[in-house]
Amino acid sequence: MKKESVGFVKTQYYNLPDDLILEGGSRLKNATVAYETYGKLNKKKSNAILVCHALSGDAHVAGWHEGDRKPGWWDIIIGSGKCLDTKKYFIICSNVIGGCKGSTGPFSINPETNKPYGLDFPIITISDMVKAQKKLIDYVGITQLFAVVGGSMGGMQVLQWCVSYPDLVKLAIPIATAAHSAPQQIAFNEVGRQAIISDPKWNKGYYYPNKIPKDGLSLARMIGHITYLSYESMYQKFGRRLQDKEKYGFDFSLDFQVESYLHYQGESFVKRFDANSYLYITKAMDYFDLTKNGSLTEGLKDVKAKFLIISVDSDWLYPPSQSEEVVMALTANDLDVSYHEIKSPYGHDAFLLEAGQLNYVISGFLSEILVRDVMTPFVAKIGEESSINEAAKLMLEEDVTHLSVITENDKLIGIVTAWDISKAVALKCSKLEDIMTKDVIITRPDNKIEFAAEKMKKYNISSIPVVDDGGRVIGIITTDHISTLITRD
Amino acid sequence: MKKESVGFVKTQYYNLPDDLILEGGSRLKNATVAYETYGKLNKKKSNAILVCHALSGDAHVAGWHEGDRKPGWWDIIIGSGKCLDTKKYFIICSNVIGGCKGSTGPFSINPETNKPYGLDFPIITISDMVKAQKKLIDYVGITQLFAVVGGSMGGMQVLQWCVSYPDLVKLAIPIATAAHSAPQQIAFNEVGRQAIISDPKWNKGYYYPNKIPKDGLSLARMIGHITYLSYESMYQKFGRRLQDKEKYGFDFSLDFQVESYLHYQGESFVKRFDANSYLYITKAMDYFDLTKNGSLTEGLKDVKAKFLIISVDSDWLYPPSQSEEVVMALTANDLDVSYHEIKSPYGHDAFLLEAGQLNYVISGFLSEILVRDVMTPFVAKIGEESSINEAAKLMLEEDVTHLSVITENDKLIGIVTAWDISKAVALKCSKLEDIMTKDVIITRPDNKIEFAAEKMKKYNISSIPVVDDGGRVIGIITTDHISTLITRD
Repeated sequence: MKKESVGFVKTQYYNLPDDLILEGGSRLKNATVAYETYGKLNKKKSNAILVCHALSGDAHVAGWHEGDRKPGWWDIIIGSGKCLDTKKYFIICSNVIGGCKGSTGPFSINPETNKPYGLDFPIITISDMVKAQKKLIDYVGITQLFAVVGGSMGGMQVLQWCVSYPDLVKLAIPIATAAHSAPQQIAFNEVGRQAIISDPKWNKGYYYPNKIPKDGLSLARMIGHITYLSYESMYQKFGRRLQDKEKYGFDFSLDFQVESYLHYQGESFVKRFDANSYLYITKAMDYFDLTKNGSLTEGLKDVKAKFLIISVDSDWLYPPSQSEEVVMALTANDLDVSYHEIKSPYGHDAFLLEAGQLNYVISGFLSEILVRDVMTPFVAKIGEESSINEAAKLMLEEDVTHLSVITENDKLIGIVTAWDISKAVALKCSKLEDIMTKDVIITRPDNKIEFAAEKMKKYNISSIPVVDDGGRVIGIITTDHISTLITRD
Repeated sequence: MKKESVGFVKTQYYNLPDDLILEGGSRLKNATVAYETYGKLNKKKSNAILVCHALSGDAHVAGWHEGDRKPGWWDIIIGSGKCLDTKKYFIICSNVIGGCKGSTGPFSINPETNKPYGLDFPIITISDMVKAQKKLIDYVGITQLFAVVGGSMGGMQVLQWCVSYPDLVKLAIPIATAAHSAPQQIAFNEVGRQAIISDPKWNKGYYYPNKIPKDGLSLARMIGHITYLSYESMYQKFGRRLQDKEKYGFDFSLDFQVESYLHYQGESFVKRFDANSYLYITKAMDYFDLTKNGSLTEGLKDVKAKFLIISVDSDWLYPPSQSEEVVMALTANDLDVSYHEIKSPYGHDAFLLEAGQLNYVISGFLSEILVRDVMTPFVAKIGEESSINEAAKLMLEEDVTHLSVITENDKLIGIVTAWDISKAVALKCSKLEDIMTKDVIITRPDNKIEFAAEKMKKYNISSIPVVDDGGRVIGIITTDHISTLITRD
């Protein structure tokens, strides 16, 4: 299948109508969430995938902004024919609260002073970021996310979503991440913060809008950048090659390509990122800890999602052992968990680079969608002894066109539709039994979604009840649910 | 055997009489080398072990300075009963040129300006450090080092010694090191330097003696310190424990123990180390590269030492793969190489901490000394047809008390001593044949040193010729050579 970009896109902004009450106790007023969406939300709003970004990411995850030389930061997996296929899914990505890419952060205007917040901005946590995303999702009208996907700090948000809103996440794909920051991760964050705080231009956080702490932020990024690569990938990329020199300078100018590269990374980061946001976001990562009473199993005990957990073998910043810890805790909670370790020399950055493996593993996971993953668990049911009139009233009340007809023991014995009611009126029937369809086409919750789709197509019907082994109807699946979810090569 | 400290020690200073001509082309005038020694140099000066220090080390490797609360930095392996046993060996350790612990460095007074050098100090290399050590060794009167030992940058010096002065190193023990700095290592050094250079108090290197760039140097040390530990050891040491808090501060004060620890490390480093030295020494490490035309085998082709190479399994800063590269290059050059990977959770720092494994592995290696490792390859020889008078003259000329008597084909047929000459005068013999000892006790070059020592003891003789398989005498070994080298439990 041809892989295509989502094309030109624009960032949108949602102003939260209410204060955002933060984990630390503060209230954030007039907060804005910047976001982008690609693909179409289906009628049942069941095909939404939320993508969460890492430390320095933003809402612009795919496609092109007018005039840009590079596409969104995860364009390799989003678009027609890619694993997050915009022909099937509605993709939404928002900039985190505390960030500097359109969502409210320390660079934003404090409504109480009409000046940038600076360090008056309240400390935010991963859970606060997710809370703001939840409000955005509500606004867009999505009641359940088909999937939540993210790498690094994005993966922390994925896990936090599953804990904060267990009923709202069907599938979760945390990549190259952890359920709690380890001391080495905190240590690297702290030296990055210290680089910024030590820069006199930082001025205790009140440097806007002129003298920005360039040196400090650049250095923080240089430190961070080393941790995103592996020993091996740095060797492959730079070796000991000199930059614009034939031999050592024997002075303190830059000698090696690897040094020039890091300085370039630092300098370009300063142009696109706010130093205070760097402080706030790294602090949020440090605070992140889903264990409860020292147990991750306990911390994840209310989680309901089905998981694909991905790690990278050469990632030493978020080593596979941290992903495996999550796998074990989820498995101990009897959850459905798949685990995949990407083979890559790229280190932590592999989650942004390994297009082939990511697309293969994620599309494999998403194509294994079962009926239970996408069905509406609520079904409008009516007893077999009910009258036509009662059925018509129930349809009106529930705003549905189909009713499952059940026995006293809750067993499905037929389906009655609005069309059947209309027919009954014409034929002057009064009993449901006379007009309902008795040879009901059903699907089991463990059937693959493709199987249900084929049945609907074959029998030319728009919905199928989902029936468990005991013959009880436990949900319903409609063409709306699956129209965009199945693969059409 | 009881392990004992070397007790109280003092640093000594050697002023180089000549300019030190540096690899970069500059001349360093009036340079001083600070050093310490422990144990006694034997008569043959064959029991000297040079210890080389890492980035932040100094000459004070063992024992105690008056009033100190901690012993020298590698006290765990130096002293009576430890692997670098001061009952057997004469240990010498000097502060590197460019350092700030007594040897001439950027903090020293520039004789041309009578002010501290600052950045007028010339760039130095690992090879320059070794060159200065060589001058110290000459001064002490050591013509060959029994062993050179060091970890991290100390290991680089060990390797450099073997390349710069192949005839002067019998045994080499480079630990947790590399034969060339890899880009990740250069990258970490560069962010450390950048932390210092970005500190306005650094003032382009001319900050002496007052406003020192504390923040920058402290940050450089914090970054470095993370790389010396492992993910695992940091977890074991700190976990996610808070420092002096019951719950998160929700501000930018320090929350976690790991943060406090790093800040403490940074602050105490500032009190004992010079920021410019940090720049010079890390630059020397970056420049270190023993490959030649892209080949380490070629770069090490003139090396003659026997090697014990030690790496640490959890060391991600100088990973075992870098040690293995050295093992392969040396093996390709037909050198005698032993390799040992220490099992430790401590990361790079294990080379300073794993007392048990280090003592076991190093003492094992040192006790496997062969006769060829310590013999004097020169032997005073005299033809079997020579007269008593000629023998007496040769003894006088060569300042020896023993002569090997050989055939035309260079085969050993006897030994004649000063005592034999004296006897000949008394007995009025004129032929060597009449007075020499014919049943010569010999040793083979591949015999263990203990074997030769036992023979000397058994036959009550003070020297044994070393004879190869062809019956030719290729060297001599005396009680002086071995008196301090054998284990006496």
